[in-house]
Amino acid sequence: MKKAETNLKDLGKKVLKDVEDERNPNIDIPIRSLSNIIYDQKTKSLTLGGKAAKRYFFNIAHAKKFMQTLMVAAFCKKLISENIHTSLRDLFYALKRTLPNSQENTFDEQKESDPTIVDLEVVLDVLREQLHLNADIRGRVVGDVKIRDRGDTVDWSRLGSGGWAIPSNVEDIDFKKVNASYILVIEKNAAFERLHEDKFWKKHNCILVTTQGQAARGTRRLIQRLSTEFNLPVYVFTDLDAYGLYIYSVIKYGSISLAHVSDRLGTPNAKFLGLTMDDVDKFNLKNFAIKAEEVDIKRAREMMKYEWFQKPEWQRLLKSLIDRKIKAELESLSGKGLKFVTEEYLPNKIKNKDFLD
Amino acid sequence: MKKAETNLKDLGKKVLKDVEDERNPNIDIPIRSLSNIIYDQKTKSLTLGGKAAKRYFFNIAHAKKFMQTLMVAAFCKKLISENIHTSLRDLFYALKRTLPNSQENTFDEQKESDPTIVDLEVVLDVLREQLHLNADIRGRVVGDVKIRDRGDTVDWSRLGSGGWAIPSNVEDIDFKKVNASYILVIEKNAAFERLHEDKFWKKHNCILVTTQGQAARGTRRLIQRLSTEFNLPVYVFTDLDAYGLYIYSVIKYGSISLAHVSDRLGTPNAKFLGLTMDDVDKFNLKNFAIKAEEVDIKRAREMMKYEWFQKPEWQRLLKSLIDRKIKAELESLSGKGLKFVTEEYLPNKIKNKDFLD
Repeated sequence: MKKAETNLKDLGKKVLKDVEDERNPNIDIPIRSLSNIIYDQKTKSLTLGGKAAKRYFFNIAHAKKFMQTLMVAAFCKKLISENIHTSLRDLFYALKRTLPNSQENTFDEQKESDPTIVDLEVVLDVLREQLHLNADIRGRVVGDVKIRDRGDTVDWSRLGSGGWAIPSNVEDIDFKKVNASYILVIEKNAAFERLHEDKFWKKHNCILVTTQGQAARGTRRLIQRLSTEFNLPVYVFTDLDAYGLYIYSVIKYGSISLAHVSDRLGTPNAKFLGLTMDDVDKFNLKNFAIKAEEVDIKRAREMMKYEWFQKPEWQRLLKSLIDRKIKAELESLSGKGLKFVTEEYLPNKIKNKDFLD
Repeated sequence: MKKAETNLKDLGKKVLKDVEDERNPNIDIPIRSLSNIIYDQKTKSLTLGGKAAKRYFFNIAHAKKFMQTLMVAAFCKKLISENIHTSLRDLFYALKRTLPNSQENTFDEQKESDPTIVDLEVVLDVLREQLHLNADIRGRVVGDVKIRDRGDTVDWSRLGSGGWAIPSNVEDIDFKKVNASYILVIEKNAAFERLHEDKFWKKHNCILVTTQGQAARGTRRLIQRLSTEFNLPVYVFTDLDAYGLYIYSVIKYGSISLAHVSDRLGTPNAKFLGLTMDDVDKFNLKNFAIKAEEVDIKRAREMMKYEWFQKPEWQRLLKSLIDRKIKAELESLSGKGLKFVTEEYLPNKIKNKDFLD
């Protein structure tokens, strides 16, 4: 039996035992607020601390949430038994109803069901995907890789200009062949298409991934699986702005809101390849830089305080964003010629190990 | 030589001839404002009327735009000769510079280069993609189809859970095998994944496409090519709100802002499969409906005036959105069970030809 199913059953048995023993049925829910989020120096990832709270059935403040938690757990159990996957929004609609002889709805808004799912991820120590709940999909991949997925063999090197659309759930993918020296993760589609057209992945023996903005869970998990299972370095190529740097941060350390799953979604060996402020100076991109908005600068200030950005080189980069009040997109490198990224910028940076870590 | 290259050369020769004959160099640019957009009853698509304006080099109001138009044309000519594709944003950066001995930039913002590209599409009667300028990518497809693309044979029936990521440019794709009775276009990823998991495309012999919101140009063009080249009906499945109905409208008739390319991006035989207000009543989805925002109602009012929505059944549907002030998402059908869409809703609607046209 899969871990998710076992742990769901154990949760059910525990609550049932409480009822049989005439205890107030309860579930231990680890606390997920910032006060319980720890940056683990050793594993280089964000993680949850030990604080937890009990959720009771016989407690006016807890009763509804308790019911919702068990409803979601029962629904996931059913998804797993019937081998169906679905989305958070579908779960909400499937469980929303008015309780008999009352005006009370099980759930009024998705805002109520979503956190319940995260609670269960933490309580059961599984990923949402293992509960058969799919997240948003975004992201594409190409490279000399063959996988087995749902009975199909998919060759990522033979997908024309399109690439493989990364699904939300990559738990059950088998990697049959992985011929690559590293993984290059690119924030933007347009740059990905340019590199793919130039056959960058073939010439440089790498796997190309585009996140299409902030990486979706499926994409983060795919990067992590490839990196850890095949011992591949990961280089992240984003715009030079707080948003781009945070895309890197989430891939490497995990996100603040999902700190409890960093060990499964984060890739601690990821390195930041660019764009950096030093690139702006070195390649004379100042003409192509954009004035930073107040929100960019505020975000950079927040990030300067994060424990995992305390290294002098990161403090220097973040400070330069604040002081110079500019940002630069990776497309600005096109000012140097359309093949500059493929033929000079990336190969040189990778050869010279010109990364931030 | 490709049409785009021929037409670019002709444009260059025309301007050169103006110079040699000592005429004021000029280009005829068809007008793209609403006043020149016509709904063509016969072809069922939005199209440009005959109004045009001349853009002159020796005219203080035109000179900069004239220069920009020729710069973009020359850049596209180079892209085609070197067989490189790039994005609108990259084009902007590649052409942005300060003119010698002046404070004047060729382009200050992408807002200036984007419309120039649309001008050229109209003047040259080609798609942006034929000028090697890629648009945003979004959209995935699965089905019993084999294509050739960039030397690769891609089998859309053997791509695991992911599907094929539709590229921005589908002009050069060869369809080698198309085994399908119709194309089902779905607004949302989550519903697409559900249907894909249930192997809907295999059981019902169709091609499944998700647009992931408003359809990108590559996705619209792919739907049109498949539908016209293989005579396949197209059914569009979206949320019940003005936004969803407009997704359908753009797939079928083309968009207002890109009326000049409706003949290449629109699919006039597309039919709207749902969600409809009648579905909400028939399947008792009222509990799952959402209160419409003011902006939804305003948009529905605008759409009621469009010439291509004058049929009584569309007026009735749009009016119901305004009168009842609700909207409903396709996920709300999950309230009837997670397999309801796959096993009942879609097969019945398609069997009974329960569409809006």
